[in-house]
Amino acid sequence: MEESDINLVCPVPISEYDCVVIAHGGGGRMSEQLISKMFFSQFGNEYLNKAHDGAIIPFPGKKLAFTTDSYVVSPVFFPGGNIGELAVNGTVNDLVCCGARPLYISLAFIIEEGFLMNDLWKIVLSISGAAKKAHVRIVTGDTKVVEKGKGDKIYINTSGVGEIFPGLMISPDRCRPGDIIILNGTIADHGISILSKRQNLSFESGIISDTASLSEMMGEVFENCKGIHVLRDPTRGGLASSLNEIATSSGVGITIYEDAIPMNEDVKGACELMGFDPLYVANEGKILIFAPEKEAGRIIDIMKRHREGKDSVIIGKVTDEDNGIVKLKTLVGSTRIVDMISGEQLPRIC
Amino acid sequence: MEESDINLVCPVPISEYDCVVIAHGGGGRMSEQLISKMFFSQFGNEYLNKAHDGAIIPFPGKKLAFTTDSYVVSPVFFPGGNIGELAVNGTVNDLVCCGARPLYISLAFIIEEGFLMNDLWKIVLSISGAAKKAHVRIVTGDTKVVEKGKGDKIYINTSGVGEIFPGLMISPDRCRPGDIIILNGTIADHGISILSKRQNLSFESGIISDTASLSEMMGEVFENCKGIHVLRDPTRGGLASSLNEIATSSGVGITIYEDAIPMNEDVKGACELMGFDPLYVANEGKILIFAPEKEAGRIIDIMKRHREGKDSVIIGKVTDEDNGIVKLKTLVGSTRIVDMISGEQLPRIC
Repeated sequence: MEESDINLVCPVPISEYDCVVIAHGGGGRMSEQLISKMFFSQFGNEYLNKAHDGAIIPFPGKKLAFTTDSYVVSPVFFPGGNIGELAVNGTVNDLVCCGARPLYISLAFIIEEGFLMNDLWKIVLSISGAAKKAHVRIVTGDTKVVEKGKGDKIYINTSGVGEIFPGLMISPDRCRPGDIIILNGTIADHGISILSKRQNLSFESGIISDTASLSEMMGEVFENCKGIHVLRDPTRGGLASSLNEIATSSGVGITIYEDAIPMNEDVKGACELMGFDPLYVANEGKILIFAPEKEAGRIIDIMKRHREGKDSVIIGKVTDEDNGIVKLKTLVGSTRIVDMISGEQLPRIC
Repeated sequence: MEESDINLVCPVPISEYDCVVIAHGGGGRMSEQLISKMFFSQFGNEYLNKAHDGAIIPFPGKKLAFTTDSYVVSPVFFPGGNIGELAVNGTVNDLVCCGARPLYISLAFIIEEGFLMNDLWKIVLSISGAAKKAHVRIVTGDTKVVEKGKGDKIYINTSGVGEIFPGLMISPDRCRPGDIIILNGTIADHGISILSKRQNLSFESGIISDTASLSEMMGEVFENCKGIHVLRDPTRGGLASSLNEIATSSGVGITIYEDAIPMNEDVKGACELMGFDPLYVANEGKILIFAPEKEAGRIIDIMKRHREGKDSVIIGKVTDEDNGIVKLKTLVGSTRIVDMISGEQLPRIC
C-alpha cells in the first residue's frame, strides 16, 4: 500500500460513526452507505457496481455467476434448520437470483474453540444434504479455529459459481413499468423462527424457518420463461428492503398489495405480539420475480408444481410513478410508503 | 436433513476431542484428520478430494480454478502488511497454485462491532491496491457485523475464480521421482513478523511479512513452461507441512537441503531466540514448484526477473525412497525426518 493512499480521508464521516456498529451489517440504509461509500468507492467495477446478489462475469466464451455470503446466524440451530443448510441454500439462491444454474460451492468455517464436535458433525451432515438437494458440489474449502471468545460457535462462508442459463438477462436495473411481481409463498418465517428460538418462545403450532434451495424450481422456470427482468431473494431486511433496492436500481415505482402477500397465521400473530413489521423480517426460501405481465401465468404454473412454490402469487406491480418509492395498498384501502430500514431490526438473522 | 442422518456417528472420536480445539485449525495433522474424517467423508467428490489449494473444475468448454480462504490473522496490522492485502494475495496465490490466471475474487467481511472505521478504511485501501497489483477484480461481496466479543476486530473471506492456463496439468499427486523443487526466496518471514508484533519484539533491522501476489511472475512461468507437476504455497504449517502433504499425495519421497533454503539472518536469529523451527513457520509470498529437472533452468531464469522471485533456488528433489517421508540434509551432513506438525505452532497466523 502506498503511503499516499493511507492518507485518503475515510469516506464514511467518522464524526458520525468512528467505529462499526451493528446496524452497519443490517442490510438497511446504513449498510448500504458503508458499502457504497467505502467499498464501492475503492473496489468499484462494472460487475460489482450492479449490486446484484452475485456477479455475472464473462468467462472466456461463457457467462458465469459468482457470489459469496458469510453466515453468522445465532442460534446456530433453529426451528426448521441450522447454519449449515442455511449457508448452502443462501448461496445457491443468490446464484439462482443471477439467472444461473448453481454448480459449485466453496465452504469456509471459522470455528470458535470449544465448539462441540457433535454439533459440528450435525452441521456437516446438514450441509451435505442441502448440497445434494440443490445439485451443487462442494469443491474447495477452508477451516480456521479462533480462540474462545473471539467468535460465536461457528461462522460459515460459502461462495458459489454457476452457469447463466442461455437467453436470460437478469439484472437489478431491468425492472420496467408494467412488470408484475411474483412471490413464492409466506413471508417472515425465517426471521420469526430465529427470534422465537432466541427468546425461548414456543408458538402453539410451531413456526419454522423457510430455508430451502430454489434451484430446482427456478431452473424449470428459466428453461421455459426467458423474459424475466429481475430476481431477488428477500433475506436480511425482508421484502421491504429488497423492493426498495430494486425500485432504486431500476428507477421505477413499486406498488404491493397487503392482501396478496401470503403469511402464516402464527407468524402474523408473533409479529403483532413482538411488534415487528413482517415486511422487514428475513426470509430464506423466498424469491421475488419481476417479469412482464404476459409471462406471469406460465411462471406461476411452473412454480406451483414445486413444494417451494406452491403458494406462488402476484403481490404487486411496477409503475412509472414516484420512481424509487415502494408503496403498500393496505387491507383497509389506504396507501403507505414502505421505506428502507435504516439500522438493524434483527441482528445475525443469517 | 433426514433424521437418520443425524444419528450417524461422529467420525472424529469424541472420546479424544469432544470439542474443537485450536490445533484443529493449525494446518497440521489434527486439521488434516478433522477435514478428512468429518468433511471429506460427507462432501467428498473427485474435485474436493484432490485437497489442492483450490479446485480445478470443468466449466462447460473451459477449465476453471475456484478457491476460498478465511483470514483471521491477529494482529490485523503487522509489519509489512495487514489482513486486507493478505486476504487478496493469499487467494490469488491459491489460484496460481492451481495453474490458473486469477480473474475474479469475492470479498466477505465479518466485522466486530466497535472496529474503528478508519482502520476498516485502511484495510479497504490495501485490498484495493493488492487487487490492482494482482490484476484481479472484486466482483461480489458481503458484510456482516457481529456483537462486541463475538469476533476479533475483522475476519475476511476471499474466494477466487481463475482460468487454467492451457496445456498445464497441476495436481498435488503429480510429483515424480527426479523432479526438482524450486522455492522463490526466504522462508518464515510472515510468521515471524506476526509473532514479533504480537510480542512487541522489535528486531534491529525489522522483519517484515513477505505477503505478495505471485500471479504476475507465475503467469510468465506458465506461458513458457508447461511441464510443471505440482505447485504449493507454504502458508500455515510452513515448508514442512506443504512438503509432507505433497509427499503423501504423490506417494514419493522428498529430500531437501538445509544449506539451500534461503533465510533472512534476522528471521533465523528470531527463530533461534524464540525456539521456532523455521520449516514450520508460515510464508505468504512463497511458492514451491515441482518440475522435471530439465525445466528448472528456464523456470528459475523467468522467476529471477521478478521481485518476488529474485532469490529463487532449487532446495531439494523428489525421490523414490521412503514414500510419504520428507527428509532434511542438515548443514552438518546428517539426515533428519521432517514430520508433519500435529497441533498448532502459531495460531491465527493468516
